[in-house]
Order: sequence, then C-alpha cells, then structure tokens
Amino acid sequence: MSDSASHPTTEQGLEDEPEFQNLSKITIAIFGLGLMGGSLALALKGRVQMLLAVDPDPDTRALAQRQKVVDHISSHPTSILDRADLIVLAAPVGAILQLIDDLPSWMSEPAVVLDLGSTKAHICKAYEALPPRFDPIGGHPMAGKETSGLAHASADLYRHAPFALTPLERTSPRARALSEALVRALDANPLWLDASTHDRWVAATSHMPYVLSSALALATPQEAAGLVGPGFRSTTRLAESSPSMMSDILTTNRGAILQALARLRTQLDRLEDVIQTGDQASILSLLEDAASYHNTLTRDRI
Amino acid sequence: MSDSASHPTTEQGLEDEPEFQNLSKITIAIFGLGLMGGSLALALKGRVQMLLAVDPDPDTRALAQRQKVVDHISSHPTSILDRADLIVLAAPVGAILQLIDDLPSWMSEPAVVLDLGSTKAHICKAYEALPPRFDPIGGHPMAGKETSGLAHASADLYRHAPFALTPLERTSPRARALSEALVRALDANPLWLDASTHDRWVAATSHMPYVLSSALALATPQEAAGLVGPGFRSTTRLAESSPSMMSDILTTNRGAILQALARLRTQLDRLEDVIQTGDQASILSLLEDAASYHNTLTRDRI
Repeated sequence: MSDSASHPTTEQGLEDEPEFQNLSKITIAIFGLGLMGGSLALALKGRVQMLLAVDPDPDTRALAQRQKVVDHISSHPTSILDRADLIVLAAPVGAILQLIDDLPSWMSEPAVVLDLGSTKAHICKAYEALPPRFDPIGGHPMAGKETSGLAHASADLYRHAPFALTPLERTSPRARALSEALVRALDANPLWLDASTHDRWVAATSHMPYVLSSALALATPQEAAGLVGPGFRSTTRLAESSPSMMSDILTTNRGAILQALARLRTQLDRLEDVIQTGDQASILSLLEDAASYHNTLTRDRI
Repeated sequence: MSDSASHPTTEQGLEDEPEFQNLSKITIAIFGLGLMGGSLALALKGRVQMLLAVDPDPDTRALAQRQKVVDHISSHPTSILDRADLIVLAAPVGAILQLIDDLPSWMSEPAVVLDLGSTKAHICKAYEALPPRFDPIGGHPMAGKETSGLAHASADLYRHAPFALTPLERTSPRARALSEALVRALDANPLWLDASTHDRWVAATSHMPYVLSSALALATPQEAAGLVGPGFRSTTRLAESSPSMMSDILTTNRGAILQALARLRTQLDRLEDVIQTGDQASILSLLEDAASYHNTLTRDRI
C-alpha cells in the first residue's frame, strides 16, 4: 500500500485521484455475501483485480460458487485475506461490531475497512480500537429490499442510491478516495457526513418508517385483512424486514429513534386534532402541507 | 328493466344469473372519468352494449374522445343517460354525495346505481333518499395509485383487487347480481359486507396508512432528505394522495379513524417501550410478532 501523505486532504476532487480512476488494481474482500454484499460483488464483478468473500452459510457459498459471484469464497477468514486492499463488512450491525473485534487476529497486512451497517456511531466507535495498520471508514448505502440473501442480490441495487460515508479522524485521504471511487463505481451518490448526524437523519428516513410499518401491522384487526389494498402493502412493506437486523438497529440508535418518535407523535397529534374537529378547511390545509412537503423530501436529487 | 322478484335472493350463485353471464347487453354510464372511472371504462371497453360518461373537465373529455375510451361523453348529464342500466359514480366521496342529490333531476328511467367511494356509511345513507326507480348499492375497489386522472388509468387497475360491495336493505337481487358480475368482469374479487363494517375495516387498512404516511412526511427534517431511500418512499408514498379526496374521507369516516388511531397509538407505545428498555430479546420478540402478523394480513387470498 502506498503512503497516503501525498494525497489531497479535501473531499472534493478525491474521486479524481489517478490511483482510483478505476478499481482494476484493487482486491476487495467482502464479509457477508447476503443481499448487500452479494449485490456489491455482482456490481464489481470483472471490474476489480480480485473479489474475495467470507460467508458462514454453506448454501450462500454454494450459490456464490455456482454463479461465480466472487473469485474466492471461504467459510472462515484465511490468509488470502491479506491480499485485500479493501475489506467490506456487509452484515447486520451486531455482526459488524463482532467482525471489527476479530479483524486484527485474522489479518496481518494493512487494509482499508469499510462497512455497510445501518447505524454508524457504535461502529465508528469500535473502529477506534483497531490497530493502526487498519484504515477504517463508515459507510451506509440507502438501498435494500425487505427480502434478504444472495438469491435476491442484483448488480443495480445501489444504482442512484445515496451512499453515506462517515470518516473517522484517523481515516486517511487514501481511504476516503478509495471509498468514494467504490461508491461511484456502484453508480451510487456519495454523501459525506459525521456518524452522529448520519444516525440522527436515518432515524427519521429509515428507522421511523420501519417502526411505523410494524405498529401499523400490529394495529390492524385480522378481520380487516380482506380489505387490504396496495396502499396498505406499500406503507407496511418494511414490517417484514429481518427482525434481528432491525433489533440491532433499534438498540444501536435508540436515542435518535426516540427523538424521531417524539416528533412523529407531535405530527400525529396535529392530524388527529384536525380530524377530531372535522373542519374541512383545516384538514385540507394540513393535508396539502404534508403532500407538498413530502414532494420536496423525495424529489430526485442530482 | 325486468322485475327482480324472480331472481334468487341469496348472494351465492347470483353471478351465475344467465342475464349477467356477460355484460354485453348492459349500458353503463360512468360519472367521473378519472383514474378509477377511466380504468373501469378501459376494462369494460368493447364488452358492454354501450359506455357513456359524464366529466366536467374539458381535458379529460378531449383525451377520452381521442382514445375512444367510451362511446359517448358529455360535460353535463343529458337525456342519453336514460339509456343506462347501470350508473357508476366514480368520484371523491363529497362529489358522490352531491351526485346522488342531483341524480333524480337528471334521470327519469330506472337504473342500478353503484359508486366507487372510499367510505360507505354516508353514501349509503344518502342512497336511502333516492326515489324508488333507483336501485342503489355501495361499492369500493381496493385499488388505486397516488396519481390521479384518466392519463394514469389502466385496464388492469382492478385485477385481483378486493372489491367491497355494501348493499342496502332496498337493494334488489338484480342490482346485487349485476354489481357482482361487473366486479368479476374486472377480474376483481367481490366482498359483501355492510357499510359500517366496511368503514371500520378501511379505517385500518386504508385511512390509517394515509394518515401515518402524512405524519411521517411532516415529522422528517428537511436536512435529512439526502438520506431518503426506498423504505421511506414506500412507507410515505400515500402522503401525495389527493388532499381534497382524502379530506372527504377523513370527514366521512371520522369515528372509525379516531378508533384506529387509538389502536395505532397503543402499538406505537409498545414499540417505544421495548426500544426504551433496549432489551434485545423483548425487541426481537415484538418485531418477530409484527413481521409474522403482517405476513398473515397480506398473504394473497384466493
């Protein structure tokens, strides 16, 4: 690995670093070849020097080998990992925290470490304890499905998705440039921010939708199921996300989620108040505000 | 129109009535050629004796004429409506209530009257005031989009959708049979129930998802918009439904919606409690309950 001191330190322009104009000289090791790790592999296949993977699940490994998703896959970390320039931790938050703990015993060579975990504060804190040969940076692509597993992976999962990157103070310019080049190779949109801001924002845009989907499902009488339509399906789709993945998220982002819940209750109160009064003009005005504000939130960005 | 006394009075078997084996001898007049009325017309085109429509919007009429969506369209009710065997009121609830008021002055011949309104109690009550030559029945297809207008209509909008039918005491067996035949012609699934049960159920499966989508949009800080992903889009999709259509719904189904909101708050409290404790096992257990219950609610029915 080259010395990073000669690289620029500002984020702007880093993606133009000649070293990462493309990733063809980079070897990437992916821990976890599920929906996220598998989609990453499919998107990078044939475009990097070598793709390595580690996955404990025999079915996943068999599928990966059959479909030649990566160049090498094993059930446990092996010495081949030392060839990796970049380690990608593609697992639920709890498993990522465990992987960070174990990494030093598995790898003796330097490497950039990027994770795809849904919350960033706990993970970035865990990164601080890594020995200096590791160059860690947090990542979180705003992409996914309510399904999981390599069988549902696709090369375009990350296309046009916002991809949060949360560097630590110790993160080198080289690791920043490599991460940004990876994000651009996926056709995703890098968004640089700090871990705690990230966690506050995703509490609103990701964790709150999940909590509400679950609450809405639980609050629906079984007898009403005959009148479930496309609106219900769309609004509650997230309720079938992986409970273990989501419980990691709810425990590692508790503070921000409780704050977002309080904001949600305030808005629910406003809506309930106007519904209670039955005043058409007030109802209409609030609904128009919600519709137009929703439009500003979800308009596609460049 | 034939005397209905010779027709069976049970709901079962009515769809086998020879008269409605197909709808080829039926003339249908649709009031409102928007998303719902337009999709109905597209699905029935060429399969009924004649399709008539009334729509006040000049652009809609121009589009309908250009695409030959119906056989005859006018801006106001004309005497041609007297040829209709079946009147379909395809408008927001407030407009349907007004149409029911005006109908007797427009039509002098008997007709079955079916509406597609999202709430049924107010509408079925208004039907009671119609002169005896009208044979009214409530309807509500669980289909739609957050977009509106004829331009978004499609012949398969109703395919496989539950289609609630809420007869009145005065609704004749013939009107029941004709409505069921229409629903089956759309490839939708008829579900017979009374208006107040319907309203209680859709408060949970349709109106609550809308209210929550709106609350969630309003509770999301603008600065977090950069981290909006597919989960947020799906969960809040309904927030851009037509505010005037939704305000009709919220005012005409207030009681059931307030009850559903109370149930929702109970479930939100449960979720907040386990998140607050941070206890992984309790969180996991509640999330697993929500996921598996959601699955039972949304599993496709025969």
